[in-house]
Amino acid sequence: MIKVGIVGGTGYTGVELLRLLAVHPQVELTAITSRKEDGLPVADMFPSLRGRVNLAFSAPDKADLTKCDVVFFATPHGVAMAQAPELLKAGVKVIDLAADFRIKDASVFEKWYKIPHTAPELLEEAVYGLVELNREQIKGARLIANPGCYPTTMQLGYYPLLKAGVIDAGNLIADSKSGVSGAGRKAEIGTLFSEASDNFKAYGVAGHRHTPETSAQLQRYTGQKVGLIFTPHLVPMIRGMFSTLYAKLTRDIDNAALQALFEAEYKDSQFVDVMPFGSLPETRSTRGSNMLRIALHRPENGDTVVILVVQDNLVKGASGQAVQCMNLMFGLPEETGLQQIALLP
Amino acid sequence: MIKVGIVGGTGYTGVELLRLLAVHPQVELTAITSRKEDGLPVADMFPSLRGRVNLAFSAPDKADLTKCDVVFFATPHGVAMAQAPELLKAGVKVIDLAADFRIKDASVFEKWYKIPHTAPELLEEAVYGLVELNREQIKGARLIANPGCYPTTMQLGYYPLLKAGVIDAGNLIADSKSGVSGAGRKAEIGTLFSEASDNFKAYGVAGHRHTPETSAQLQRYTGQKVGLIFTPHLVPMIRGMFSTLYAKLTRDIDNAALQALFEAEYKDSQFVDVMPFGSLPETRSTRGSNMLRIALHRPENGDTVVILVVQDNLVKGASGQAVQCMNLMFGLPEETGLQQIALLP
Amino acid sequence: MIKVGIVGGTGYTGVELLRLLAVHPQVELTAITSRKEDGLPVADMFPSLRGRVNLAFSAPDKADLTKCDVVFFATPHGVAMAQAPELLKAGVKVIDLAADFRIKDASVFEKWYKIPHTAPELLEEAVYGLVELNREQIKGARLIANPGCYPTTMQLGYYPLLKAGVIDAGNLIADSKSGVSGAGRKAEIGTLFSEASDNFKAYGVAGHRHTPETSAQLQRYTGQKVGLIFTPHLVPMIRGMFSTLYAKLTRDIDNAALQALFEAEYKDSQFVDVMPFGSLPETRSTRGSNMLRIALHRPENGDTVVILVVQDNLVKGASGQAVQCMNLMFGLPEETGLQQIALLP
Amino acid sequence: MIKVGIVGGTGYTGVELLRLLAVHPQVELTAITSRKEDGLPVADMFPSLRGRVNLAFSAPDKADLTKCDVVFFATPHGVAMAQAPELLKAGVKVIDLAADFRIKDASVFEKWYKIPHTAPELLEEAVYGLVELNREQIKGARLIANPGCYPTTMQLGYYPLLKAGVIDAGNLIADSKSGVSGAGRKAEIGTLFSEASDNFKAYGVAGHRHTPETSAQLQRYTGQKVGLIFTPHLVPMIRGMFSTLYAKLTRDIDNAALQALFEAEYKDSQFVDVMPFGSLPETRSTRGSNMLRIALHRPENGDTVVILVVQDNLVKGASGQAVQCMNLMFGLPEETGLQQIALLP
Repeated sequence: MIKVGIVGGTGYTGVELLRLLAVHPQVELTAITSRKEDGLPVADMFPSLRGRVNLAFSAPDKADLTKCDVVFFATPHGVAMAQAPELLKAGVKVIDLAADFRIKDASVFEKWYKIPHTAPELLEEAVYGLVELNREQIKGARLIANPGCYPTTMQLGYYPLLKAGVIDAGNLIADSKSGVSGAGRKAEIGTLFSEASDNFKAYGVAGHRHTPETSAQLQRYTGQKVGLIFTPHLVPMIRGMFSTLYAKLTRDIDNAALQALFEAEYKDSQFVDVMPFGSLPETRSTRGSNMLRIALHRPENGDTVVILVVQDNLVKGASGQAVQCMNLMFGLPEETGLQQIALLP
Repeated sequence: MIKVGIVGGTGYTGVELLRLLAVHPQVELTAITSRKEDGLPVADMFPSLRGRVNLAFSAPDKADLTKCDVVFFATPHGVAMAQAPELLKAGVKVIDLAADFRIKDASVFEKWYKIPHTAPELLEEAVYGLVELNREQIKGARLIANPGCYPTTMQLGYYPLLKAGVIDAGNLIADSKSGVSGAGRKAEIGTLFSEASDNFKAYGVAGHRHTPETSAQLQRYTGQKVGLIFTPHLVPMIRGMFSTLYAKLTRDIDNAALQALFEAEYKDSQFVDVMPFGSLPETRSTRGSNMLRIALHRPENGDTVVILVVQDNLVKGASGQAVQCMNLMFGLPEETGLQQIALLP
Repeated sequence: MIKVGIVGGTGYTGVELLRLLAVHPQVELTAITSRKEDGLPVADMFPSLRGRVNLAFSAPDKADLTKCDVVFFATPHGVAMAQAPELLKAGVKVIDLAADFRIKDASVFEKWYKIPHTAPELLEEAVYGLVELNREQIKGARLIANPGCYPTTMQLGYYPLLKAGVIDAGNLIADSKSGVSGAGRKAEIGTLFSEASDNFKAYGVAGHRHTPETSAQLQRYTGQKVGLIFTPHLVPMIRGMFSTLYAKLTRDIDNAALQALFEAEYKDSQFVDVMPFGSLPETRSTRGSNMLRIALHRPENGDTVVILVVQDNLVKGASGQAVQCMNLMFGLPEETGLQQIALLP
Repeated sequence: MIKVGIVGGTGYTGVELLRLLAVHPQVELTAITSRKEDGLPVADMFPSLRGRVNLAFSAPDKADLTKCDVVFFATPHGVAMAQAPELLKAGVKVIDLAADFRIKDASVFEKWYKIPHTAPELLEEAVYGLVELNREQIKGARLIANPGCYPTTMQLGYYPLLKAGVIDAGNLIADSKSGVSGAGRKAEIGTLFSEASDNFKAYGVAGHRHTPETSAQLQRYTGQKVGLIFTPHLVPMIRGMFSTLYAKLTRDIDNAALQALFEAEYKDSQFVDVMPFGSLPETRSTRGSNMLRIALHRPENGDTVVILVVQDNLVKGASGQAVQCMNLMFGLPEETGLQQIALLP
């Protein structure tokens, strides 16, 4: 059994980790920390876990995380970089669901996240946990930077086309939409029900942290200079993420060949579902599951290809992907404990 | 033109007052206070008001509210009782949308609201602003205690039956449901979209402040000792309030006679719509309007009568009712500026 | 492996059976019928099942259901009664999710459902599938009448109090609220998003089919004449059911003793969670899971007890309960394949 | 008083016309037709109108529409083209909210709408009712083609940039999102609450009727060949439309100059609100009002300009715009009866 610790279990990615790990056949939940909720049974905060998770939150200084085999950080940016060095030294593997190790260049990180990077020496070693594009590296990793939710959809959607060299890498437009849970479990007016319900809006239009993360990764994989315009929006739904990706074809290629690029790329990736050409995926088809679905379109058969990508932002976009990484790191089949079928309706 | 001031304009009852008063033909909006937002144009916080309300918030000490003809308090409990005495002395009428003057007995108030009452000398004079049951008193009032949202539905729903003496006053059960805006515009986890959406729950089951308010008023009107069980619930919708009121008939009375009690009672009240017997009112039929709708039912023709009452909690349940009071206090037709038709769909 | 057939798999209880049975370790999905969708892969209609359910719908006459060990009817009322006799004769067990066998008295059934009962000879044998109150009978049953969603909450909520004889059985008021999926997957204007969203309403106030079902069952268990007023309401959420149950205490009994009645009754029922006295259960704590949660309240410590009951209407209220019955009928542990944790948020 | 008839008053644009016209100071509602609902009081179908609209639906053959001054067609495509010739002959003005007269080229219309055009002789005369770009023509019109909802946002968003010649007209990408009411009041599974809630999806990606309408109009105004990729999406909200418009700048121009183009263009258009550069408009800021709001962005100060446009799809996107046209056609101030402030929250 893998002994698992979770730092920061009171947010949405934390409770989602608990939902997944509580039924994972190879996991023993060992510690969950929360400075504020020390002593509170987890199930008192999240009644969905009554009778299923018997742990209580413990203050960080009381929890001996070095006894864990792996520790997940479901924390704000900056926490993992402070604690990871010591854990790694003690032989504990670390999976950070925040952004601390996603961007290889510390100065770029600091520009976008406005905090100093306190563990730049780990940036080189950290493995970006996008399983479908980094599977082998993840297997041997000690430290995982779990991808951002939006970047997961953008990378998996654009990669096969960039790799094949059939689109203009300098001219990508990603129009993305997220459910409100992506904003986290924080007391803020902007995400109150009465503010966010029956409403639609964009945010971060002038520049969003997920743009450099995505561009840098796509450039690393493909060696092409990527120019990406990314616009995130807030949808009045709890879970779900939808990216509408636009690209200009630079070569004459028919739809079947485009489709074949995706099917070949993801044929061994059971959590990426390449739907038939022209399909219309819905976010709810992934609700609560680790599936990500992709469908290709070509409006009026012109030179623009539109890639539609859906996932559950809290599962494949966060906690599910983190568990997928953990499985690989411990030699388990990638899908272990991740077989939940989406809740529809 | 009536010069109007609003204390505490950053909450939902405040912005709703602005929506109604900005198009009120006899009103001149004069001052809106907010300690925190001093100097901020109101339309910057509420873009729905861009081009329609040109006022900025001003700090309480900068706003000379004594120049107003009437001041609305859209504030937390306790604010109006502190400021009303001085305003009244200056000849300014006061309408409090909070609970400060709703309960005549200061000790009952203090028990339920957990704050000392600092202006008990005004309790006797204060007029309870439930227009349909207190119209004449309101016309002459200087100080209005605007009713709570739930109490409005319960009083208007039970009153005709209690007055006629056909139900057991000691055995009333009110099962009420409110949209989330009733919880106000406060940064709290419990009313986040991701917590309140796709969910239903009760609250305040062991005892809620609106129970004593309602019981006391019904007793005042009818002289009967009222026994009321009241259970509020939270509905994943922004606006709307629905009360399902149960009562036991104590006399043999047919449905037409029951219906006639309501039609007679409210025949001159244009904001109370007594629907045909057996109708199924929907909250959305009142969305954004000052209408309250009532429908009577008698399950399997037994001795229980079920009264269904709907309203918009922010209009007839709060700001609309307050404007209705203002109209009467200033000799205007009751419906002035309150003719908005509900937004459906 | 249990060979399972589903008649009528295109509705919400059908797809929910598929979600549960596709991961059930002892089940082999064998046939799923739909007259209209003959030949269509199930996953084309419900993309959440892509890669997980490979069956196609087949027309009823093409599917040899007699080869199944058990057949679920996720059909409108009237279908199971037509087909059950033949299946039972062939040695196939039958679980009907509709109402055909819920009411023992055919004339009562016909009065409320407005169709003639064509298999009254099976009514005596049919076992009412409310597991927690009928566990032993279900184990030996050939034919199960799966309970209605509302009746499940009302029976489990009232039973311990009626059994103990501490409440007035003739004076029960159940105010219940359901998510919209309870209305089924039918093209109707009333349940369109634009009609049902941001809205709340009651329906069936004058009399609803779940009243006689509930009353009759409670009378069978307890021998007491039950008088029940039941009011269902529609909540703008997909899944979830909430019943607020009111009863008058007839004996002096303290809260701890009330609580003990429930804890004793359900101590061996892992899908009934008796929460601490005074808890406030939320429907979302059961979303997608087979849990039903109960909490007791006593407003202002008077003589009314309020029982709050939540469940997912499609799981414990329908398909999950049906699978729970199947498990018992085939000698499996009751919880087999039903361990999903609720999706929160 | 303008005598108004409405053909097809049972859909969402129909009831929205009623909401607006019932309080319009210069309108007398004269007839509302519905073949199916002949004789039914309008307020029985739409209880929001109880006490405000006393008309009943009448069958088309019973209503003498030739006595009206103007007739609105809130009907499916194809109805207005059948009835308009006769009404125009009788001196009645016609405003069609459907697409019959939006596209000047009958063959293009027939290609996209799959029905023959039966009144091509009126296409030349018909005036496209986008007030801000066609104001003078509308004043003199007998026949108005009210614009589609999406095209309204795209045209008003792109026009100032195209007119100034600062963007690449051949390379426009419009990613648009609509509330569910845009799908109309039709009994269909796809727009049921349980299907559309907590979900997000695209539709019509391969080609949508609003693309040719928009392209053709933008070409007419500007003389430039327009290349437009348009992707509509469905948002789980009742009302509201959001367009995220992307364009490539072809000239060196600073943000202030871009902003000035919009402010100059719409300075006399009180229903177009050009927000400060970099603003984040929300659909709810237009809920129930005739306002359309625009905000400009320039991601990372590159050569892409992003124009955000919001409106209420049923008001400025349909019925409000139609009333705005009517006002101009009858010499009234454009804003008459259209001063409703958006409902927020």
